Amino acid sequence: MSAPKKVVLAYSGGLDTSIILKWLQTEYGCKVVTFTADLGQGEELEPARRKAEMLGIKPENIFIEDLREEFVRDFVFPMFRANAVYEGLYLLGTSIARPLISKRLVEIAEATGADAVSHGATGKGNDQVRFELSAYALNPDIKVIAPWREWDLSSRTRLLEFAEAHQIPIAKDKRGEAPFSVDANLLHTSSEGKVLEDPAEMAPDYVYQRTDSPLTAPDEPEFIEIGFEKGDAVSINGTPMSPATLLTALNEYGRKHGVGRLDFVENRFVGMKSRGIYETPGGTILLEAHRGIEQITLDSGAGHLKDSLMPRYAELIYNGFWFSPEREMLQAAIDKSQEHVTGTVRVMLFKGSARTVGRWSDHSLYSEAHVTFEDDAGAYDQKDAAGFIQLNALRLKLLAARNRRVK
Amino acid sequence: MSAPKKVVLAYSGGLDTSIILKWLQTEYGCKVVTFTADLGQGEELEPARRKAEMLGIKPENIFIEDLREEFVRDFVFPMFRANAVYEGLYLLGTSIARPLISKRLVEIAEATGADAVSHGATGKGNDQVRFELSAYALNPDIKVIAPWREWDLSSRTRLLEFAEAHQIPIAKDKRGEAPFSVDANLLHTSSEGKVLEDPAEMAPDYVYQRTDSPLTAPDEPEFIEIGFEKGDAVSINGTPMSPATLLTALNEYGRKHGVGRLDFVENRFVGMKSRGIYETPGGTILLEAHRGIEQITLDSGAGHLKDSLMPRYAELIYNGFWFSPEREMLQAAIDKSQEHVTGTVRVMLFKGSARTVGRWSDHSLYSEAHVTFEDDAGAYDQKDAAGFIQLNALRLKLLAARNRRVK
Amino acid sequence: MSAPKKVVLAYSGGLDTSIILKWLQTEYGCKVVTFTADLGQGEELEPARRKAEMLGIKPENIFIEDLREEFVRDFVFPMFRANAVYEGLYLLGTSIARPLISKRLVEIAEATGADAVSHGATGKGNDQVRFELSAYALNPDIKVIAPWREWDLSSRTRLLEFAEAHQIPIAKDKRGEAPFSVDANLLHTSSEGKVLEDPAEMAPDYVYQRTDSPLTAPDEPEFIEIGFEKGDAVSINGTPMSPATLLTALNEYGRKHGVGRLDFVENRFVGMKSRGIYETPGGTILLEAHRGIEQITLDSGAGHLKDSLMPRYAELIYNGFWFSPEREMLQAAIDKSQEHVTGTVRVMLFKGSARTVGRWSDHSLYSEAHVTFEDDAGAYDQKDAAGFIQLNALRLKLLAARNRRVK
Amino acid sequence: MSAPKKVVLAYSGGLDTSIILKWLQTEYGCKVVTFTADLGQGEELEPARRKAEMLGIKPENIFIEDLREEFVRDFVFPMFRANAVYEGLYLLGTSIARPLISKRLVEIAEATGADAVSHGATGKGNDQVRFELSAYALNPDIKVIAPWREWDLSSRTRLLEFAEAHQIPIAKDKRGEAPFSVDANLLHTSSEGKVLEDPAEMAPDYVYQRTDSPLTAPDEPEFIEIGFEKGDAVSINGTPMSPATLLTALNEYGRKHGVGRLDFVENRFVGMKSRGIYETPGGTILLEAHRGIEQITLDSGAGHLKDSLMPRYAELIYNGFWFSPEREMLQAAIDKSQEHVTGTVRVMLFKGSARTVGRWSDHSLYSEAHVTFEDDAGAYDQKDAAGFIQLNALRLKLLAARNRRVK
Repeated sequence: MSAPKKVVLAYSGGLDTSIILKWLQTEYGCKVVTFTADLGQGEELEPARRKAEMLGIKPENIFIEDLREEFVRDFVFPMFRANAVYEGLYLLGTSIARPLISKRLVEIAEATGADAVSHGATGKGNDQVRFELSAYALNPDIKVIAPWREWDLSSRTRLLEFAEAHQIPIAKDKRGEAPFSVDANLLHTSSEGKVLEDPAEMAPDYVYQRTDSPLTAPDEPEFIEIGFEKGDAVSINGTPMSPATLLTALNEYGRKHGVGRLDFVENRFVGMKSRGIYETPGGTILLEAHRGIEQITLDSGAGHLKDSLMPRYAELIYNGFWFSPEREMLQAAIDKSQEHVTGTVRVMLFKGSARTVGRWSDHSLYSEAHVTFEDDAGAYDQKDAAGFIQLNALRLKLLAARNRRVK
Repeated sequence: MSAPKKVVLAYSGGLDTSIILKWLQTEYGCKVVTFTADLGQGEELEPARRKAEMLGIKPENIFIEDLREEFVRDFVFPMFRANAVYEGLYLLGTSIARPLISKRLVEIAEATGADAVSHGATGKGNDQVRFELSAYALNPDIKVIAPWREWDLSSRTRLLEFAEAHQIPIAKDKRGEAPFSVDANLLHTSSEGKVLEDPAEMAPDYVYQRTDSPLTAPDEPEFIEIGFEKGDAVSINGTPMSPATLLTALNEYGRKHGVGRLDFVENRFVGMKSRGIYETPGGTILLEAHRGIEQITLDSGAGHLKDSLMPRYAELIYNGFWFSPEREMLQAAIDKSQEHVTGTVRVMLFKGSARTVGRWSDHSLYSEAHVTFEDDAGAYDQKDAAGFIQLNALRLKLLAARNRRVK
Repeated sequence: MSAPKKVVLAYSGGLDTSIILKWLQTEYGCKVVTFTADLGQGEELEPARRKAEMLGIKPENIFIEDLREEFVRDFVFPMFRANAVYEGLYLLGTSIARPLISKRLVEIAEATGADAVSHGATGKGNDQVRFELSAYALNPDIKVIAPWREWDLSSRTRLLEFAEAHQIPIAKDKRGEAPFSVDANLLHTSSEGKVLEDPAEMAPDYVYQRTDSPLTAPDEPEFIEIGFEKGDAVSINGTPMSPATLLTALNEYGRKHGVGRLDFVENRFVGMKSRGIYETPGGTILLEAHRGIEQITLDSGAGHLKDSLMPRYAELIYNGFWFSPEREMLQAAIDKSQEHVTGTVRVMLFKGSARTVGRWSDHSLYSEAHVTFEDDAGAYDQKDAAGFIQLNALRLKLLAARNRRVK
Repeated sequence: MSAPKKVVLAYSGGLDTSIILKWLQTEYGCKVVTFTADLGQGEELEPARRKAEMLGIKPENIFIEDLREEFVRDFVFPMFRANAVYEGLYLLGTSIARPLISKRLVEIAEATGADAVSHGATGKGNDQVRFELSAYALNPDIKVIAPWREWDLSSRTRLLEFAEAHQIPIAKDKRGEAPFSVDANLLHTSSEGKVLEDPAEMAPDYVYQRTDSPLTAPDEPEFIEIGFEKGDAVSINGTPMSPATLLTALNEYGRKHGVGRLDFVENRFVGMKSRGIYETPGGTILLEAHRGIEQITLDSGAGHLKDSLMPRYAELIYNGFWFSPEREMLQAAIDKSQEHVTGTVRVMLFKGSARTVGRWSDHSLYSEAHVTFEDDAGAYDQKDAAGFIQLNALRLKLLAARNRRVK
């Protein structure tokens, strides 16, 4: 790979990406464009602008964007249509944010004539894969610079020395090492590393930053009603909301009731197991409610097909293949299933749990006439079941007879 | 089908199966053998013996058996190795009990020279299918009598008239109609029908019979440690237990902390949707813990394959195909994966939730050496990730280049 | 089910459906509308009109339609996009024709105010299921009359007596029984029953009606070039053709070279195995060519997903679930994959075989630059493979180390 | 990775692996152990021994083994139980040989105290991945040396210079470059590269080395009968044979009749497409026959599950994951299904084709009594089909009614 001339850097304004910024300049002698996005991580963006300016980036090369609506509408919601969970439990909060960042990195590179993009993910994690696969899928000629895989600043001490040598200001609380590492966006907060590295040890309470403890959550349950249209949440308690507004509101409900904590050991795409503490307050409520509305509006054939496709779909997102033809194929199938997933779900929030307690819809397939224990007025002929069973049993009978014969 | 001469009836001792007993005698003039099993439903069995005797069944034709250990060991535990849930949420508590009952019905039929078996399931539900597919799979020549699909006792009034006409005692509380219908065994209690038929309406609190309300559950969390060997739970807090004993103990923990309630609308195999309230206290804890121990002992390739097979496996059990070659094939694959699923999981129980908070094992695949944020002493070469990403990206790059070319 | 008042009958003009026509009139006293379609079965349609008129059907109740283009365009081609084969070998020639017939039956019923439709399929086969599931999926209120499941004309003798009693003309060659039963349309001809019922016995040569014997086919191979656009065949040897014209032409090539014969034992949806002789001359060439063009235009991620979905897709079509949400979901995924399946395939036809021998496309993903044994000018860095292998191996190494440790 | 001290080399005795042998000695100063296996590639092994001796390898470090029986019994046959084909057409002839070679390399390394193994596969292909994943899965501490990814002998000229400089004899026909590259074993011969690199161009006839041309094959068909037990072929025309003997005999039948040629473009695991010419004469007959015997002995539930698992199973083998838990899980499921796959298949061989024309078995599930067009004496009640269809249709009706209601 020839040296990059101009690099768009995913820049948070924090110490690490500031070091990367300077390192790119010194190591490659290249121009740097910074890109800072609001994906709902709960940090101010303007300090990143000032920091970039201070590091010598010209205003026209500083890109700061609020991507929250796009994030929820085009990434989070499509994923939730699938009820996607990775390895049974993880709601993919980090995974789903990476493709959007890469998409904007590539677009800004094309707009600014940059030939490379760069990110601050380490060489051990999944995020490097997600960033880079997305970038290459969108621009096959782009270069990707992953400083953590290249440089020799492998210890905290070396990093701080580099920062000091290049006059990068170091906040006091960054002098020492954080007891664990955090990633956050509108969907979730993840914590991993250091004090969390022993999966036998219970995570200390201070790790949780996004949710109140179920132990101290309100003693009374709270009920909310979430409205859906074609598989996407569109309202809470009857109030229509935009995607990001709605997820923000659900996050607040979830935070209050301690919903969405997960202590998890997962398999990284790069081959090792890692332990993370995930907090997905609004997303956990949303998944429960989406399942609730599908229960009455989705046909069993569609539902069972979705269930069987989901693990692969979740794995694709986890592994970084959002921009792949197979993810798009699965999305086409999933979206097709959601045409009538419209209605309202009542969810009870209480001390760490979100539970569906009622659901209704004009699009309901639930037929009280068929299922009732009372007289069904001929909606269903129980005698049909005899033939249904006989023909389902036929192959089993032939099999049993054969097995008896040739035992 | 020619008329049966001797029928083995799945007999609970209750009013409905007593009516069936008498109806079989009068309708077909056949001998009746009763089979009453303890699967942990929480009812005395001896009254069923007395009732059967009273209805004229000879002692040698009354079979009463405690099947709890066999139920958990050979049915519940194999199913939990798969983390089986139907339609995302249902732990299959009713489904998994049916094949065992059918197995014993068929075995007793063969032992007593009976040519038919009979059950009290209605023509609208899944249980008829499960009973009958299992019976036919085990004995292709057996006859199955399903009175609810045959007789004209379609109203409560007609049933009571029949009972009175045949001197079947009617308990006072059975005069009126129950507000909902219940099925129970060691794994779960399900409630459905009548007051539960509107899925928009929250289930009344009196429906729950097996779990205390999360709202009134203890204000302090309780921690338990569940030991696993080859995928099956074998101990609680270090005390080894037999399968049924262990599940019974977990049920008690779950009851106390309100764990395992589910308000669910599902797709029946016979084509309609129905709403049920399920309580699976011990099973819910067991599923959480099994996932917890798999997190550190199961390889990702095995785990992801399991996840992708699970929906089909669960569907097979739900639909009544326990005794089918495809369920056995899947079981062989699942069991193969469990050879090292051995270790201990710490679970926190609190107001309706069971959450893994720690797990450890001699068989652990978790490698702190690889995953650590600290210096890994060469366990992992971050530069490998570059090649890994490049080759995973190659097809995406070729695709992007093609799509740009022929757009 | 209340008696039908007006029935649309799938009417071939042959003896069996003429008997059904008359039986519907006499059994139910209902009006009959006849529907005769040209799906390429190779029979004149006008005799069916005359026959219907002779049996008293008014001209406005006689529907005769050429559906060949719709059949190939909207049913055969979408199915071939999936490379669908049932149980490894069967190209679904009969299965795919049934939904279209049902669709027109239901549409004609709605246009003529009929409340029922009727077909001539027996109670043992798959076709009854396919006809009826399609009809119910398109009109939930339609009645379906399946005379073969209802009447008592169960022997050839009884049928002929009924025909004579109702003055239905019987062609001389229909007096005796045919040595096997045939179904045909533009995609295939199937033969089954009678002389074919022993799967150990080789099918006699006179069974094959649609293809010349490979043994007597031309001694020289013939090469044809099939052009594709977005997954569908659009030209032969450079000549653009409509779907039905193209399939007709491929059938002629296949017939001449003995392509597409299959001696097959399959599992019917109704639970039994049956043996059929299938001839799918053009379809066999088309499948081979479609695979050929996908080889260079389809990405591996998309291709492997398609391969894994195909068995379920084929099973749905075989079982009669064309008009189901899950088939439509899968179709959405498959169609999504075909956007660049455009190019040309060269196929060699010779004595029973159709083999791809070349393929080219502007949309090709094949990169000689990458794959060449010669110097690749830096297109591919072989050192990347080391990292790729290391990270793919990591979990296997951790596994091997664990297994050595706790053996 | 520290330098290897003793390396077991997969050694063919040819020029390339002789150069590798010498390069390992000179580059690493390590001891070399040679391993030469007969997997049915059709070459003498003794010349390899002499060549190794001439290059200074001591007799006790030269391992020459006939692995043909183990290859077919433990690798080829288990794979054929699955009817495994990669991307619809490729019978995995190269893929399946690699794990066995790696297994012996690792075992010999452990026996001789070697710390590394080495192979002659290039950095662009799949074989490096297969060799190395297998080696690491069997010994997590083994080193793997892949000279083609390390050295700078990247042109034919450099290689020959190296050979001459180290007095490695060069056969005259190796001076020039081969027009394509060949791999062979008892299952197949593959050819790729050079003259075959344009997938639009028909492969020249001289590429085919293992099969006679269909065009010049015998003008008369030949019929053979293959006997199976539990899914494996055990006899031809009634003569019992060992696995390798049987495959050798099938290869001869296939060669004679031009069976098993494939012109194929495939997706390599490393991300690129490549074109190969494969000849699998005996394997093609075996696959056809195995499908034939499964048609009558395998239940539809088992068969359909197998079909749905096969693509993943084939992909695992292709990608080099033979020794992975997920391949073993799938194998457990597949093997479970083969318990009754016992019987005989009659196959017709003719000018490039192998077609099942008859099959019979004591384990047959085919029931003429059920399927017959004649009177079935009550084996099957056609009226059962009505109930079967009604309940299968119920969800489709509810769906159609809903869709009409809320359109």
